Amino acid sequence: MSKRILIVGGVAGGASTAARARRIDEFAEIIMFERGPHVSFSNCCLPNHLSGMIENSDDLVLMSPEQFKNQYNIEARVNSEVIKINRDKKTITVKDLQSNKEYEEAYDKLVLSPGANPIVPKIDGYNKSHVFTVRNVIDIDKLNRYVRSGKVKDIAVIGGGFIGVEVAENLQLSDLDINVTLVEAADQIMAPFDYDMVQLLHKEMMEKGVNLIVGDAIAKVEDEHIELASGKTVPAQAVVMAIGVRPETTLAKEAGLEIGETGGIKVDHNYLTNDKDIYAVGDAIEVYNKLTHSKTRLALAGPAQRQARAAADHIYGIPHRNTGVIGSSCVKIFDMNAASTGLTEKAAQKAGIQYDFVYIIPGDIVGLMPENSQFHFKLIYEVPTGKILGAQAIGKGNASKRVDVIAAMIMMGGTLEDLKELELCYAPAFSTAKDPINHASLVALNILNGRFRQVPVTKVRELVESNAYIIDVREVDEYEEGHLINAINIPLSEIRNRISEIPKDVPVYLHCRSSQRSYNAIMALQNMGYDNLYNISGSFLGICCYEYFNDQVSGRDKIVTEYNFN
Amino acid sequence: MSKRILIVGGVAGGASTAARARRIDEFAEIIMFERGPHVSFSNCCLPNHLSGMIENSDDLVLMSPEQFKNQYNIEARVNSEVIKINRDKKTITVKDLQSNKEYEEAYDKLVLSPGANPIVPKIDGYNKSHVFTVRNVIDIDKLNRYVRSGKVKDIAVIGGGFIGVEVAENLQLSDLDINVTLVEAADQIMAPFDYDMVQLLHKEMMEKGVNLIVGDAIAKVEDEHIELASGKTVPAQAVVMAIGVRPETTLAKEAGLEIGETGGIKVDHNYLTNDKDIYAVGDAIEVYNKLTHSKTRLALAGPAQRQARAAADHIYGIPHRNTGVIGSSCVKIFDMNAASTGLTEKAAQKAGIQYDFVYIIPGDIVGLMPENSQFHFKLIYEVPTGKILGAQAIGKGNASKRVDVIAAMIMMGGTLEDLKELELCYAPAFSTAKDPINHASLVALNILNGRFRQVPVTKVRELVESNAYIIDVREVDEYEEGHLINAINIPLSEIRNRISEIPKDVPVYLHCRSSQRSYNAIMALQNMGYDNLYNISGSFLGICCYEYFNDQVSGRDKIVTEYNFN
Repeated sequence: MSKRILIVGGVAGGASTAARARRIDEFAEIIMFERGPHVSFSNCCLPNHLSGMIENSDDLVLMSPEQFKNQYNIEARVNSEVIKINRDKKTITVKDLQSNKEYEEAYDKLVLSPGANPIVPKIDGYNKSHVFTVRNVIDIDKLNRYVRSGKVKDIAVIGGGFIGVEVAENLQLSDLDINVTLVEAADQIMAPFDYDMVQLLHKEMMEKGVNLIVGDAIAKVEDEHIELASGKTVPAQAVVMAIGVRPETTLAKEAGLEIGETGGIKVDHNYLTNDKDIYAVGDAIEVYNKLTHSKTRLALAGPAQRQARAAADHIYGIPHRNTGVIGSSCVKIFDMNAASTGLTEKAAQKAGIQYDFVYIIPGDIVGLMPENSQFHFKLIYEVPTGKILGAQAIGKGNASKRVDVIAAMIMMGGTLEDLKELELCYAPAFSTAKDPINHASLVALNILNGRFRQVPVTKVRELVESNAYIIDVREVDEYEEGHLINAINIPLSEIRNRISEIPKDVPVYLHCRSSQRSYNAIMALQNMGYDNLYNISGSFLGICCYEYFNDQVSGRDKIVTEYNFN
Repeated sequence: MSKRILIVGGVAGGASTAARARRIDEFAEIIMFERGPHVSFSNCCLPNHLSGMIENSDDLVLMSPEQFKNQYNIEARVNSEVIKINRDKKTITVKDLQSNKEYEEAYDKLVLSPGANPIVPKIDGYNKSHVFTVRNVIDIDKLNRYVRSGKVKDIAVIGGGFIGVEVAENLQLSDLDINVTLVEAADQIMAPFDYDMVQLLHKEMMEKGVNLIVGDAIAKVEDEHIELASGKTVPAQAVVMAIGVRPETTLAKEAGLEIGETGGIKVDHNYLTNDKDIYAVGDAIEVYNKLTHSKTRLALAGPAQRQARAAADHIYGIPHRNTGVIGSSCVKIFDMNAASTGLTEKAAQKAGIQYDFVYIIPGDIVGLMPENSQFHFKLIYEVPTGKILGAQAIGKGNASKRVDVIAAMIMMGGTLEDLKELELCYAPAFSTAKDPINHASLVALNILNGRFRQVPVTKVRELVESNAYIIDVREVDEYEEGHLINAINIPLSEIRNRISEIPKDVPVYLHCRSSQRSYNAIMALQNMGYDNLYNISGSFLGICCYEYFNDQVSGRDKIVTEYNFN
């Protein structure tokens, strides 16, 4: 007899499970239930409707129920909410949201892919009609109509994660003349990036006209403005709540399925819940992080598809390998491309993993190429093993490329020694002869091997304020265009003749533009007997990026005479 | 006493060795000898001077001897040819090319980085003054002046490797009104790509106006034209010889240093020649290919830098790991980005390695994004192990990214199973939720696991000519826009109702646009008892690309009613 597979949720995970099951078994009866009116829409492209990049919201819907039926012989029931799992009978209770009728359907195997819900804090005014969330096509359509209704001069987006940032960006990029404010309760947007790296994104948001507020939370929604925890008010005739998502576990919980420590549905190696006939995949489940060896949640499309395939395979006895997750993501924010994989510093600290990192700012491609730009790259590795833990890249250039390579190396358990030997594609239009990845590994190995020491850009203000001895080894003209207020300028080209000026009895901190020349200076000085030298990792480019945003918003004293980002 | 390190050759390998040695040892005496007037110029950017992208040829020179002196305390002697190595005395004989004086310099360690010379076949007229090669800044300057002298209406570039293709492209992109012909003796340009993949590059060259001639060699140079082996004549008032390069080994040979089987200088693990005080690095040496387990030559900048570093390290007793090479390269040809790593099919065949491959044509990024384009990707793997051997990518999108990931996986000994689990960065602007790399590995695993069989696009003409039973499962409107002349159109959406039309007694070949729908059709039909089905790998997009170029140049019968490349 043919199998009856029911699937709750018809977007990424659900649709992928259905399609895979169909390919394995032409005779299975496969039914997807979706509460909303659409199956298989492009979740990730929703915000792009606001800018008009995707003009017609219908385009966001990738497959209709008819297409599922015709192409895959899969039945997709939209406007159909699964309200109960009757595990004893192996049935589900479905509510047809149009007729309001309820009915039961029997399953041999049930797959839960209900996704996650936007979190809306129950603050004053949270349920006003001008408060929006962005979860599906209906939501984005509603928001888009509202901002185009003429009622909105100011909008506040609450939450600086992927969705919040993309919504803010797309509103700002649109032809609408609306003031966009982005409010984030933490001290930074975009958690997949560390505080040092994220300053580039802060800068980009601000420079492109978004009113960015970090370290402040929403406290109250009024008709014409919002009130923040700090007491500050921000004009807003529309509010988008994008604080985060909560896995949709109600159905699972009520059916007595186990919920994990992270709040996601608990699943085993095969994405089976504690019921041997019920699988769960996608944003609603918790997964295993192979780097921290702990459970986590990961709301990403790629892993959801992999889980879906594995679940469908398991239904048919096809084994699979569960390698755990590392979390790779990327985002385009105006002209900046940003990508991250594996552990951030924060995450490594939280997991109690001993780590160190390098932060380099090489060219993305050869400097003679017209499109060349700076490329900010941070590589995090385990100490003392040199095992690669994570990477973050931000720039106008090819960030996702470098981070994808690191993701592959993490997957394979690679170390700095492996990174160093990677043969990556080089042509002047695509990279540099010494690829940024090789470059980062060489710097990291030098540090790991004790060839030189470094201090991060995050410590420079402290150094400046405590009047540390800092040498800027750039050439005089570069120094004059902008420098640390108390750095002494001894260009690399003069350093060998001016060593008498450099003290041996105090720590000496060196930097140049991107750390390449200061590294050479340190090697020379160490050879000449200096043993208390530190390279400022990221050097002047890194210092400027790091200080800029906070200087803008705090009005504190600048530690550089002029910013220079090139 | 301080070490005396002499270096022959002052470009990539030489300059890198010198800089690394200086960082290790501030007190070494380091002298680089360069025959030409420039050290450290951007080899790879030379052709870009022709298009004007790099307007001033002086910009191609990255560091002057003065800068080497000031910044690194390295002496760079230009116009200085090393004409003899006196191994018994541990000296070299240097000829000052300006004064014509000869003198000796003693070394503790000698590093040879002489590079490779353009091959110029000694055909009739090869030494005429309008025959050029492109090896250095002087060469490109000379060529550029000549093509801008008004004497040149037509130019012939001989050789379809990196340099030939880039020279042809840059001439075509320039503001010059010159007819550019590219002549290649083999049946294809760009050896790092297989014949199926390279058709996209052939098409691009032709469409952008280059007169591309493959399978024909230069036989004679006349003042106003060249003559080819076929007897054909091509108008040309200037000829660029870019057939290939030959490692510069004269100096090494005369000194009794061993030359390897490939014609490059033989070196050991540490880039030492058979003289314990003489190293050799860069284009002049032979290296070990870790995939074929054989010696090879590899004229690439990245490996040269790595060798330079290893040689300098070894001088100072710092051990390194020699992982062998795989060869990763990329090139931009007009609007096409192309990248390749590891073994091609050709190379795997030559090495006697059992392999199979997949050729997929997914979207580079999400189809809703304005910049989306087709992405041609070929993945080569060992049979039966699934070990990854190589990849080639061509498209308007991010080719080097995907190939870099494969290069990393090859470095780590990864298999298809590993590729499948890779977590790569996804956002609609950068990739697709099912990344092309994951996608390729899934197709490959299906084939390796015997879930379905495929035939390559290279076999389709044969199938058509032998009247094989071919089903095109695209929708009717797609079929009508262009299809294989004898394909039967049974859309995927109708296939379950029309199985009675499909024969069981003959092999049936299926295709759609990119193979996704035909794969689903095959799975359905196999489930219904069909066991003689083949997916046409690459499907209609692949067929069109494969056939197009040959159709254009041969005038043979078309096997499609209309080409469709989108």
